[in-house]
Amino acid sequence: MRTRAAVAVAPGKPLEIMEVNLEGPKAGEVLVEIKATGICHTDEFTLSGADPEGLFPAILGHEGAGVVLEVGEGVTTLKPGDHVIPLYTPECRECPSCLSRKTNLCTSIRATQGAGMMPDGTTRFTMLDGTPIHHYMGCSTFANHTVVPEIALAKVRQDAPFDKICYIGCGVTTGVGAVINTAKVEIGATAVVFGLGGIGLNVIQGLKLAGADMIIGVDLNNDKKEWGEKFGMTHFVNPKEIDGDIVPHIVEMTKRGADQIGGADYTFDCTGNTTVMRQALECAHRGWGESIVIGVAAAGAEISTRPFQLVTGRVWKGTAFGGARGRTDVPKIVDWYMDGKIEIDSMITHTLKLEDINKGFDLMHAGESIRSVVLY
Amino acid sequence: MRTRAAVAVAPGKPLEIMEVNLEGPKAGEVLVEIKATGICHTDEFTLSGADPEGLFPAILGHEGAGVVLEVGEGVTTLKPGDHVIPLYTPECRECPSCLSRKTNLCTSIRATQGAGMMPDGTTRFTMLDGTPIHHYMGCSTFANHTVVPEIALAKVRQDAPFDKICYIGCGVTTGVGAVINTAKVEIGATAVVFGLGGIGLNVIQGLKLAGADMIIGVDLNNDKKEWGEKFGMTHFVNPKEIDGDIVPHIVEMTKRGADQIGGADYTFDCTGNTTVMRQALECAHRGWGESIVIGVAAAGAEISTRPFQLVTGRVWKGTAFGGARGRTDVPKIVDWYMDGKIEIDSMITHTLKLEDINKGFDLMHAGESIRSVVLY
Ligand SMILES: NC(=O)c1ccc[n+]([C@@H]2O[C@H](COP(=O)([O-])OP(=O)(O)OC[C@H]3O[C@@H](n4cnc5c(N)ncnc54)[C@H](O)[C@@H]3O)[C@@H](O)[C@H]2O)c1
Ligand SMILES: NC(=O)c1ccc[n+]([C@@H]2O[C@H](COP(=O)([O-])OP(=O)(O)OC[C@H]3O[C@@H](n4cnc5c(N)ncnc54)[C@H](O)[C@@H]3O)[C@@H](O)[C@H]2O)c1
Ligand SMILES: [Zn+2]
Ligand SMILES: [Zn+2]
Ligand SMILES: [Zn+2]
Ligand SMILES: [Zn+2]
Repeated sequence: MRTRAAVAVAPGKPLEIMEVNLEGPKAGEVLVEIKATGICHTDEFTLSGADPEGLFPAILGHEGAGVVLEVGEGVTTLKPGDHVIPLYTPECRECPSCLSRKTNLCTSIRATQGAGMMPDGTTRFTMLDGTPIHHYMGCSTFANHTVVPEIALAKVRQDAPFDKICYIGCGVTTGVGAVINTAKVEIGATAVVFGLGGIGLNVIQGLKLAGADMIIGVDLNNDKKEWGEKFGMTHFVNPKEIDGDIVPHIVEMTKRGADQIGGADYTFDCTGNTTVMRQALECAHRGWGESIVIGVAAAGAEISTRPFQLVTGRVWKGTAFGGARGRTDVPKIVDWYMDGKIEIDSMITHTLKLEDINKGFDLMHAGESIRSVVLY
Repeated sequence: MRTRAAVAVAPGKPLEIMEVNLEGPKAGEVLVEIKATGICHTDEFTLSGADPEGLFPAILGHEGAGVVLEVGEGVTTLKPGDHVIPLYTPECRECPSCLSRKTNLCTSIRATQGAGMMPDGTTRFTMLDGTPIHHYMGCSTFANHTVVPEIALAKVRQDAPFDKICYIGCGVTTGVGAVINTAKVEIGATAVVFGLGGIGLNVIQGLKLAGADMIIGVDLNNDKKEWGEKFGMTHFVNPKEIDGDIVPHIVEMTKRGADQIGGADYTFDCTGNTTVMRQALECAHRGWGESIVIGVAAAGAEISTRPFQLVTGRVWKGTAFGGARGRTDVPKIVDWYMDGKIEIDSMITHTLKLEDINKGFDLMHAGESIRSVVLY
């Protein structure tokens, strides 16, 4: 069949809207009509050419929602008409990683997905001249139709609006999941969130859900104060507007009651800046503070600290897709949204047509959007 | 009273054996006759002048065992005749850290202990000319008699030999505790121990106790192979004798059964070398591997890695005194020794008189001892 897509033809170039060929689903695969897709920083990272593993031409996009149109041979858990969210972290429930019960990082199709291919090592997309087009993160939601492995699709309820729940395909789950699955924040905790963008705000709402007492947001942009407060932030710090270093500032702020040592129980980096990652670790509480890296750093950038920080009880962790097992956890997060437990609507600041998708990247660069969503 | 001590008079100088004055215990303090003390790397770190927080003159030593001679006002949990092990990590059971149930790093007397003082801000030791002598890590076991706060003494059974259980005051508890309290290793795990000295061998015996399947020891010194095997090591690697980097080598060794990703469930640095700390993190298993820093690095040295290592599920931790709460856990470890659950005797390779204590440091420098113990 033919479908319409925004194709990343080369690094640093705007996406090109074009008709492309899409082959039907092979064994274990599913054809999905994408109804809506968010634009995430990770798409921008690849499109800009900054990602050393970026492949071109490719159809980017990994934050979508849609409807199953056709299933390939052997597909048993999905049927035409089902509503689905594509998963860049699949959940096969059979590989050593899935069976470990210790990680969400399913490895069953990792190699081909990283190479921009379906599990059989080929692509379903081609240009009209026959040139193969790479898949992206196993999702390629910047096409109106896409083919996705069965194990990389979460089946969700039918009454949930596509233009909102697409955001659960990455940003919402990453932020909320980092709190719930990775940090396992407990009621009464103190926490610091560095970077109040599309990820950080979801960390904040995860912290509120988890019952944290003190939720400190840190951003260089004062406009983010109001945004943070909307989702449960209790204190805001702009590092440019304080005297001295941010670490002692936060340690001071987090001294509570009998505890005059200070430092937060949990800290989160949602900036991708390695200097911020170090600050986040070092303002975690002596003895037990945990710092979670969510941001994706520039190629080759490294994090550093004195090992004494760890020997005195701080823990440095990271999270991918918020530690969520997509097929199991994503439908639950959709329920939480529908039940009003979490908020999404106000974070979707811009809605665009596929033709205008490059405007979504411009809004991101300008820091004007939290999330732009493309509606097909 | 007067007692005999090995005094660190200046950085980089041998200890000097001399008579010193010792004041009796003040409120909350206890006078202990030290019967035996181990010589640990941390004493050497301070004596050498490498520790930027080192104070002189001081009576070093933090790995002792002895008998209570006299208790100060208000001391209720100890009486003359009790056998005790001094604790450089006290356990007051009242401070926010002790009450957190999340750390063993009691903070009730941290400031004065770090300044080489008793909790009231003064020293009990003076030279015969009246010059005050600093306490060290709150213990000062290189003196035949010492004064220690009640909260920094573990009461242990009377039938345990001082010349063996003194090692539980640091090395044994640090190594075994890192496995049990910090990593919480489970039966069937794979583990790598970097550095098979007085700490690393105790990590190995902790791993054996915890039921680990594969215990890989790494050391530059081939003599350590036999030592490791004695305590439960299943594989030995000398990084100088393999082709290429140690990280892929260990990843390859740890591929087991269906899991062809490789990497160890738990890794431990017992070298203090920051390059080794990075290797230890990076050969931990993708998705869940935890790396525990035990070694104390050179002043100012930093650890680094790409944050991707954390985002893909590795966890970087550290441990001090093996995460043990001294008054609660040390008596249990003494029981384990007396019950034959853990082995100590063969690790004590040298026994010395106080006059010969500097020989203990020489043996350590030459890599000839695992542990030297001074008998009073
Ligand atoms: N680990 C994962 O699974 C995962 C998933 C999605 C996105 N990400 C990553 O998360 C990061 C955040 O994504 P986003 O969409 O929220 O980006 P965003 O641009 O919307 O937000 C980043 C925020 O950080 C602030 N900021 C930048 N530098 C700062 C500094 N030095 N101190 C304080 N604040 C600073 C910016 O002002 C902005 O508000 C990106 O690196 C993205 O690639 C990770
Ligand atoms: N965190 C704590 O609570 C705590 C407590 C006690 C000691 N320590 C620290 O633990 C560390 C180990 O102490 P120890 O008494 O076992 O020392 P040690 O000298 O007895 O043993 C160190 C071992 O590491 C080996 N080694 C050195 N460089 C190596 C490398 N690059 N690769 C592989 N092996 C290497 C040496 O050959 C030696 O066998 C020290 O840094 C000490 O200060 C920490
Ligand atoms: Zn994303
Ligand atoms: Zn899997
Ligand atoms: Zn020690
Ligand atoms: Zn305490």
